[in-house]
Amino acid sequence: MVHTSALFTDFYALTMAQGYWKQNMACGRSDRGRSEDRLAIFEVFFRRQPFNGGYAIFAGLGTLLESLVSFTFSDEDIAYLKSLNLFEENFIEYLRNFRFSGSLWAVDEGTVVFPQEPLIRIAGGLIECQLIEGLLLNIINFQSLVATKTRRVWLAAGKGTVMEFGLRRAQGPDGAMSASRAAYIGGAMGTSNTLAGKLFGIPVLGTMAHSWVMSFPNEELAFDAYAELYPDRAVFLIDTYDTLKSGIYSAIQSGKKLKERGKCFGVRLDSGDIQYLSTEVRRMLDEAGLNDAAISVSNELDESIIQTLVNSGAPVDVWGVGTRMVTGGDDPAFSGVYKMAACEDANGQMAPVMKFSDNPEKTTNPGIKQLWRIRDSRGAAIADVLALDEPDEDSLFNAGSRCRFWHPSADYRHFYHTIEEAPQPLLQHYLADGKPCRSLPSLDEIRAHCTADLASFDSTYKRLLNPHVYKVSITEKLRELKLEKLGMRNEK
Amino acid sequence: MVHTSALFTDFYALTMAQGYWKQNMACGRSDRGRSEDRLAIFEVFFRRQPFNGGYAIFAGLGTLLESLVSFTFSDEDIAYLKSLNLFEENFIEYLRNFRFSGSLWAVDEGTVVFPQEPLIRIAGGLIECQLIEGLLLNIINFQSLVATKTRRVWLAAGKGTVMEFGLRRAQGPDGAMSASRAAYIGGAMGTSNTLAGKLFGIPVLGTMAHSWVMSFPNEELAFDAYAELYPDRAVFLIDTYDTLKSGIYSAIQSGKKLKERGKCFGVRLDSGDIQYLSTEVRRMLDEAGLNDAAISVSNELDESIIQTLVNSGAPVDVWGVGTRMVTGGDDPAFSGVYKMAACEDANGQMAPVMKFSDNPEKTTNPGIKQLWRIRDSRGAAIADVLALDEPDEDSLFNAGSRCRFWHPSADYRHFYHTIEEAPQPLLQHYLADGKPCRSLPSLDEIRAHCTADLASFDSTYKRLLNPHVYKVSITEKLRELKLEKLGMRNEK
Repeated sequence: MVHTSALFTDFYALTMAQGYWKQNMACGRSDRGRSEDRLAIFEVFFRRQPFNGGYAIFAGLGTLLESLVSFTFSDEDIAYLKSLNLFEENFIEYLRNFRFSGSLWAVDEGTVVFPQEPLIRIAGGLIECQLIEGLLLNIINFQSLVATKTRRVWLAAGKGTVMEFGLRRAQGPDGAMSASRAAYIGGAMGTSNTLAGKLFGIPVLGTMAHSWVMSFPNEELAFDAYAELYPDRAVFLIDTYDTLKSGIYSAIQSGKKLKERGKCFGVRLDSGDIQYLSTEVRRMLDEAGLNDAAISVSNELDESIIQTLVNSGAPVDVWGVGTRMVTGGDDPAFSGVYKMAACEDANGQMAPVMKFSDNPEKTTNPGIKQLWRIRDSRGAAIADVLALDEPDEDSLFNAGSRCRFWHPSADYRHFYHTIEEAPQPLLQHYLADGKPCRSLPSLDEIRAHCTADLASFDSTYKRLLNPHVYKVSITEKLRELKLEKLGMRNEK
Repeated sequence: MVHTSALFTDFYALTMAQGYWKQNMACGRSDRGRSEDRLAIFEVFFRRQPFNGGYAIFAGLGTLLESLVSFTFSDEDIAYLKSLNLFEENFIEYLRNFRFSGSLWAVDEGTVVFPQEPLIRIAGGLIECQLIEGLLLNIINFQSLVATKTRRVWLAAGKGTVMEFGLRRAQGPDGAMSASRAAYIGGAMGTSNTLAGKLFGIPVLGTMAHSWVMSFPNEELAFDAYAELYPDRAVFLIDTYDTLKSGIYSAIQSGKKLKERGKCFGVRLDSGDIQYLSTEVRRMLDEAGLNDAAISVSNELDESIIQTLVNSGAPVDVWGVGTRMVTGGDDPAFSGVYKMAACEDANGQMAPVMKFSDNPEKTTNPGIKQLWRIRDSRGAAIADVLALDEPDEDSLFNAGSRCRFWHPSADYRHFYHTIEEAPQPLLQHYLADGKPCRSLPSLDEIRAHCTADLASFDSTYKRLLNPHVYKVSITEKLRELKLEKLGMRNEK
């Protein structure tokens, strides 16, 4: 599933890259070896919480790191670029040897994150930073979207189990693969996507289709045949003809035979009113002495529907969620962007840069930054702080330190806080000069980290409707840098 | 971009397949050679128009046909299946040699389609029909979604040009690739996705990023440097600092130099109020004598925003559309499903089957069907009719024939019509026993077919809001079959 072509990039990255390359040639930077390019720092952050929610889950890092390794131009790719008659021969040769050799910092995959926070920081030559933009955003945006959505579904399901059934409605083959990975991080206990099972080691799950039932003369024969084959994993789909007048009776007949053999079974509802049908089906199963038969449901579910049903007491054990989980439903894109934070100036100095924009929310935070999560003595998250990545800023976060933190855009809002537990910085060093320098956790570890991290946030942040807004602040020094850049611009 | 693993399937397809395979073994069907499996007919149709629209565009067929060829199990895939301890050795051997060898009929790619219509018909063994379900729906659902969305955007843009800029917000790498292909079918004149340019021969397009501007001491130097490099395709991004106080002035300075060299240029707006800014920018460009400088805009556009701006007279020449076009915006999944229409019974006879369901709209149309589009003498589409695929049904569509067509679910609604122009059946034969039997059009031909086909529909069907509902009917004979199946069920 890993993309192997560096052509997976916005075309303007290539045209700009040729521009940077020619500038380098012009000022003799080619003598500087691999780092002949001007150095730059880019950061990934997102602008608003998806789903009007109170938190997001950062996901896709493992896939990104894998993809960066194979982000090269093949001979075919090079031939295609030549055919466009827009690039110089020497620049094309430069691309032929291109490999990403920059450095990468990121928050750990599965971490709870908030708008404006640097999630990934890239340090490298301007050209390589620019070329990887599309790949990076594509992977991080989509997997973070699905991990966040799934975590919401998982929370809503409470004691129920969530299964990811999105393959047929996902956005393209990789939309399905990436979604299976991200949904597992978000809390799904398995997927229907067999290839995702193989590639990511996720449990594969499934019941039966209506076509199975329709290929037999009647439901009971269809269920018996399935139970004969898979006595340890029989889940009967009971809505092919009529759930309450036919399907559940057949399931009870077939299920009793399984029970006599000491086996459990389950039923699945795929249409109709879930609360009404699950309640009736539960009652009928219980009356038949089949109290341990589990009820699975599917049919255009999302976190709001599930929460409503759970709160209404619908006796559902397993939630099969597809379309709305693997696409994000009515909010199908995570708003991650990739912006320059600093750039080497004409004197070879790294200078912070800032984009202003006509939309205030598109104004960026300048400079090379680190992200800190302040917790109280019991480990509960209180606020996140963006600081400049400098030793004197780091020392603000020592235990006992008392500091003033500022709202990132509302000028007059700030708060004082005395650090109780010294936090770790959230941005970790994953790649140094293109090479891995931090071991990657397994998918199960990422999933466990996500569960634990989210548990450290107050429940008010996790409400589906109108959640409490978590505090993301900036340090005094970052605020001053921002005001200085704004002032310089206003004086222009 | 073509998936090469048959593991890209819902896991239940494999568990059911083993069930079918064991049934075949039990009744000695293995003597029947390649067609040892029970024969079945499956159809793809969709349930509701996306985006509350009046039409959809069928897309993804070319990708699907390519993918079916490589839908096989590798040694690695086989090893994975063995590791699950759920499949018999002999069934796994059967899968090792699996190739799709069924037949496929489909409407031509780019055709305007409506709910309930058979878009694809598969005839083959039960096992192969079941295994390809996920792949087929995944590809067709997503590309049809994006082609439909793009056609809506394209119609809204009127004389303006639409460019697809979705790579960074698309749902995974393939979400981007498939979307570029489908958006081109839908009317986008190019993509920012370079790899899609190479693989599909789509024009690649782009302007410049804010980072380009920020990497120079000021905007004019940034624009001049770009114009120097790409004098024939300079589009200046003018909102990095302040569109009207800075960006447009710099663009006019750089643009005038280009104009002296006999070159055109453009500007791009990526934030702020598009109507206000484009009007001001147009005025300033015109006052500077730069009447031929084009204005491009981007920033979370969709068909409704574009239509509003066009109707308000915003002087925009090029619309760069990303997120909402490549994800479908708030409606991110096409509702295509894959249902059994007929199946070989115990006597070896092909028998129509029908799914009922507790949701009436999930009840299917039984039998093997053909789709006909009735046009008036000027070629305008009047109604589509689902008929059984039988010679006496075909003859209904001869010129001069007068017939009664029925509403597919509202029992009392029907209309009489005398055929003026004998139509061609829309389902065409693409694969016979797994082998291509109809040549595939180029992407440009598909796009042209889409434009022409949509032009044959009255504008009332194309309104964004509350469109006229196009008539999709069934023949008398299909209606009788449906009533018969319903009656048989009600007597149960």
